[in-house]
Amino acid sequence: MTTDPLVIFTPSGQRGNFPVGTPILTAARQLGVDLDSVCGGRGICSKCQITPSYGEFSKHGVTVANNALSEWNSVEQRYKDKRGLIEGRRLGCQATVQGDVVIDVPPESQVHKQVVRKRVEARDITMNPSTKLFYVEVQEPDMHEPSGDLERLITALAEQWDLHGVRVDLHILQTMQPILRKGEWKVTVAVHLGDAENPPRIMHIWPGYYDGTVYGLAVDLGSTTIAAHLCDLQSGEVVASSGIMNPQIRFGEDLMSRVSYSMMNEGGDKEMTRAVREGMNALFVQIASEAEIDKDLIVDAVFVCNPVMHHLFLGINPFELGQAPFALATSNAMRLRADDLGLNIHPAARVYLLPCIAGHVGADAAAVALSESPNTSEDLVLVVDVGTNAEILLGNKEKVLACSSPTGPAFEGAQISSGQRAAPGAIERVEIDPITKEPRFRVIGSDIWSNEDGFPDAIATTGITGICGSGIIEMVAEMRLAGIVDGPGLIGSPAQTGTDRCFLDGRTYSYLVWDGSADGGPKITVTNRDIREIQMAKAALYSGARLLMDKFGVDKVDRVVLAGAFGAHISPKHAMVLGMIPDCPLDKVTSAGNAAGTGARIALLNTDARNEIESIVKEIHKIETAIEPRFQEHFVNASNIPNSVEPFPILNSIVSLPDLNFNQGSGGDDAEDGSRRRRRRRG
Amino acid sequence: MTTDPLVIFTPSGQRGNFPVGTPILTAARQLGVDLDSVCGGRGICSKCQITPSYGEFSKHGVTVANNALSEWNSVEQRYKDKRGLIEGRRLGCQATVQGDVVIDVPPESQVHKQVVRKRVEARDITMNPSTKLFYVEVQEPDMHEPSGDLERLITALAEQWDLHGVRVDLHILQTMQPILRKGEWKVTVAVHLGDAENPPRIMHIWPGYYDGTVYGLAVDLGSTTIAAHLCDLQSGEVVASSGIMNPQIRFGEDLMSRVSYSMMNEGGDKEMTRAVREGMNALFVQIASEAEIDKDLIVDAVFVCNPVMHHLFLGINPFELGQAPFALATSNAMRLRADDLGLNIHPAARVYLLPCIAGHVGADAAAVALSESPNTSEDLVLVVDVGTNAEILLGNKEKVLACSSPTGPAFEGAQISSGQRAAPGAIERVEIDPITKEPRFRVIGSDIWSNEDGFPDAIATTGITGICGSGIIEMVAEMRLAGIVDGPGLIGSPAQTGTDRCFLDGRTYSYLVWDGSADGGPKITVTNRDIREIQMAKAALYSGARLLMDKFGVDKVDRVVLAGAFGAHISPKHAMVLGMIPDCPLDKVTSAGNAAGTGARIALLNTDARNEIESIVKEIHKIETAIEPRFQEHFVNASNIPNSVEPFPILNSIVSLPDLNFNQGSGGDDAEDGSRRRRRRRG
Repeated sequence: MTTDPLVIFTPSGQRGNFPVGTPILTAARQLGVDLDSVCGGRGICSKCQITPSYGEFSKHGVTVANNALSEWNSVEQRYKDKRGLIEGRRLGCQATVQGDVVIDVPPESQVHKQVVRKRVEARDITMNPSTKLFYVEVQEPDMHEPSGDLERLITALAEQWDLHGVRVDLHILQTMQPILRKGEWKVTVAVHLGDAENPPRIMHIWPGYYDGTVYGLAVDLGSTTIAAHLCDLQSGEVVASSGIMNPQIRFGEDLMSRVSYSMMNEGGDKEMTRAVREGMNALFVQIASEAEIDKDLIVDAVFVCNPVMHHLFLGINPFELGQAPFALATSNAMRLRADDLGLNIHPAARVYLLPCIAGHVGADAAAVALSESPNTSEDLVLVVDVGTNAEILLGNKEKVLACSSPTGPAFEGAQISSGQRAAPGAIERVEIDPITKEPRFRVIGSDIWSNEDGFPDAIATTGITGICGSGIIEMVAEMRLAGIVDGPGLIGSPAQTGTDRCFLDGRTYSYLVWDGSADGGPKITVTNRDIREIQMAKAALYSGARLLMDKFGVDKVDRVVLAGAFGAHISPKHAMVLGMIPDCPLDKVTSAGNAAGTGARIALLNTDARNEIESIVKEIHKIETAIEPRFQEHFVNASNIPNSVEPFPILNSIVSLPDLNFNQGSGGDDAEDGSRRRRRRRG
Repeated sequence: MTTDPLVIFTPSGQRGNFPVGTPILTAARQLGVDLDSVCGGRGICSKCQITPSYGEFSKHGVTVANNALSEWNSVEQRYKDKRGLIEGRRLGCQATVQGDVVIDVPPESQVHKQVVRKRVEARDITMNPSTKLFYVEVQEPDMHEPSGDLERLITALAEQWDLHGVRVDLHILQTMQPILRKGEWKVTVAVHLGDAENPPRIMHIWPGYYDGTVYGLAVDLGSTTIAAHLCDLQSGEVVASSGIMNPQIRFGEDLMSRVSYSMMNEGGDKEMTRAVREGMNALFVQIASEAEIDKDLIVDAVFVCNPVMHHLFLGINPFELGQAPFALATSNAMRLRADDLGLNIHPAARVYLLPCIAGHVGADAAAVALSESPNTSEDLVLVVDVGTNAEILLGNKEKVLACSSPTGPAFEGAQISSGQRAAPGAIERVEIDPITKEPRFRVIGSDIWSNEDGFPDAIATTGITGICGSGIIEMVAEMRLAGIVDGPGLIGSPAQTGTDRCFLDGRTYSYLVWDGSADGGPKITVTNRDIREIQMAKAALYSGARLLMDKFGVDKVDRVVLAGAFGAHISPKHAMVLGMIPDCPLDKVTSAGNAAGTGARIALLNTDARNEIESIVKEIHKIETAIEPRFQEHFVNASNIPNSVEPFPILNSIVSLPDLNFNQGSGGDDAEDGSRRRRRRRG
């Protein structure tokens, strides 16, 4: 008695014996090997391509003969002649087992293929999208056994794909009958596979075999910008990325001014909802046109945003978020239809909003948690998403804490006298000589320092227009290191600092960075008011982080991840000199880029990640800074540069911070002003 | 040791021992006694009113002392003082057990109360509506344990009402926060309890205790008229009924002409969809205004209709229903939202369409099956829903068969020379003296026969304007009985019939019923063409029924139910003389009124009935008359009055049908004309 041939799949290593004549696709399915197919084994889609290996495999204990797979049959040969096939590849549904064989499943033939992320510490994304394509052959209608076309289509999905309980939206039903007939009862169906709240659902039908794909959007809906990635839901590839300014900016720069707008103006919330949805639709038109695809092929969309944007986007008045106890209308993840939100993509496209963590810690923070996974970290990681509102996560695999802190827009260059958004001409890097107190800097658009040859030429087209967010952080930190600013945040007089770049400017001193007035450009200075703004912002950030450390019961963290587009440009050393982030080895401070956007993309491409983040968020312990008595104390301490009580030993081992106090009696007033402003931002 | 007091509930007879101090509502819930409550035992809603009985109950073996229930507490007393309470009633949630007691639950305190139907043979409706009201107290937001208002509301429904997995539509979420605060965290929630496809869902929220109700619509969407009943979903009461003409009539009187319209006119189906939905919305405005309620309180709607109306209402082109194999887009029941169909009731109102049985046997036939329950009948019942298209069901508890037959509009007085819709002035009852051949008749609006004193006065305001559908049936049957028309359907000459009321009218004879020309009124005659129209219509009906009898393997039925508004006015004897329905004892021919509308009402008030009819429909065996070879043979036989081959022994024992043949050689041509017309109607 002979045993059936052995089939070994790589890279999974799954193996089993199958009778001669078994198609490789069938063997793969029986073993649970991850081998794709859209046409269900009819030799049409070629998604099940595999690479047989021949020869001796001592590792597996088999020898594969040249005739281990069947000869090319007519279906396979026709496919190859018509469409072409990479040398060595076979169609898994046509090639059958003839002898022991080793079969490699190339990545593009795997359903759950990996989308590799660039950062070393970031985990890859496993493809498991909401919506997949299925080719089916539907039974024709029969007067003797009357049943609806839909019911026979649903039966075909159940019988041919083991998809049960599939439902359909009315608009599909309205267009289905001619498509079935055009395809001669063979159709390709895009099926949303269902989720915690919804059964599987037919999203689209094409006559015959549809040789295309469907798309999804990962959208990071920020207070200032809306950024979207358009992804191929089969390959996971980002096919286009685009962004626009949030049109709500005309109602207020920061969140609390928008909440105020909705309070002060009857129907103001509805105006803002309309504005953000219109902006979103404009962005979708733009991104679809960039990718040269039909908008109706966008069948899924994931949104991340802070709680105020979350409410305004959903059409919920954010009133309650403007006052204690900051009650969210809903905190759980939302599963909606695009038309619920007036979004002009596929009419039945599914929309997923990540859960909010708390009234001030939104779905964007949840997305950061999904992307950065503090909950699986062996070491204690502080994740800071730096923006107008900072979301802060602290944790490891034991537990994760979260809070938000109203940093205000200073880190984005707003409310800074020479501040500006990051754009060509903006100062982004700064060094100040501690002896001469002379600055040198670089502007966006050029790699040449201001004291290097060729600088005037390099900036000829852009000019020097102001200081961007990351530039102001370096500037203040460098002023502190150079002894121009003292710990409490006062700029010294020319006498105290030994440089005429410090000049009396009203009641306090300012520092002259660049005088472009000779060429008709601006005079770029840092005023003491600017220093105060940065102090308030960084104190808010630090005291939030410090509060989480208190709650965690630690005095230090193992590593810091700076998230947010802005976070990518911050110099760790300068951030630490400023006391924005806790003391920590500099090489343990990394940037995660737009982690919220990445979290959205993970949730888009892998629906398991949606369940995962919903569980994670339930486990995250939320801290409301507004009612924590120690927050105020931390805030006051953190107003100092870097801090009036924290020792920052690692920082002090790298840099030497001059021990100065220029106190002339005006700091207290200013600090109080800032504190008042901060409270106002919170509402 | 004493045992706890015994509590006996009537009428259910459920009983149990409960500790002294147990509220009656609690005891009822523990025993599963059907006792209503909206406020959850807070003494607010009074839905749990009960009547304690005192004295000796030998039947139950208990004596109830006067102090068997607790004294009136302040909550109960306040309710009575403020709102009043029927003498002898107590609030079940406040009155507690003190000794053995017999508690009667009055019908209005039962959740699953019975809505009694008028007809003896009709089963009552058990209340089990889709949507119920629940009063809850919601936990206030807490910054230390942040969660959304919605999540706390959902928790309250789970904890206080055992309602789990409740979801919410976006529009509720958009309005929920101010309502929760206005009600000081006490709200009444209307919850759709979910169904086979959907989880429970919040439909509406009111601040505090809402002392009202919610409503549902049962809509019979006919080709000619749209009729709706507005029902109180708590009491089951019909609070208003209203109807309008189907605005699609302008696109074609019968179904097939509407299908043709959609084929011949690009976008014609969309025009008709818009027309029927607009008509529906106008009807809803009308019915809500009659009942003096807010349309937004209509949270559920059930629709029954034939397949063509079904598709047009859903926005599906009915093209396929106009040609073999008559493929429905979908045959299963549909669960939708009102806004999917553009209906202006509560924005999230749920819509339920009963399943279709086959391409020609629609949700209206399913509704008739639900109302008349042939599937539970001990004897073999033929149910005929008489309309432009007749739906026919034949069955008993063993099996049920169904078909439809295109009778055309003759039974509604259309295509009849003196025909008219049933309205004052229309002849509705007829007798013809078999000796004198003189007719006497009654018109709608008067109870006086035309040969009785006072007739001219009685009709003075209406006149005599024509013959309605039931009138024409009696007329032709009486003409047949009186020997004016022969079996093949020819009107005899004056010589053959012995009356000058028969007169040559073109190539054939007509019969003069009434000559109102002296008073400026119409001359009402029955032409031989009229007889042909009725022959075609009744032959279509009979041959459908006969085909089902063949398939069932029977030659006779035990009883006949005439459904449809028109069916209510048909005289069984005359219908049988005509050979519309099979031979059967006359007292076994009953009318069910608008059974399709009743079926809709049952499905509205009792959601279990929805699952029931979905199962029943799956079991019904469908016969497509268009492809049954014997249909044509039955049709030809049934063209005779009553029938050229069927003996009708019971009918012949009651009446004597003259054995006549006026054949003058023209019958064959006319019959062929009719057959052509019939085929055209089918498309």
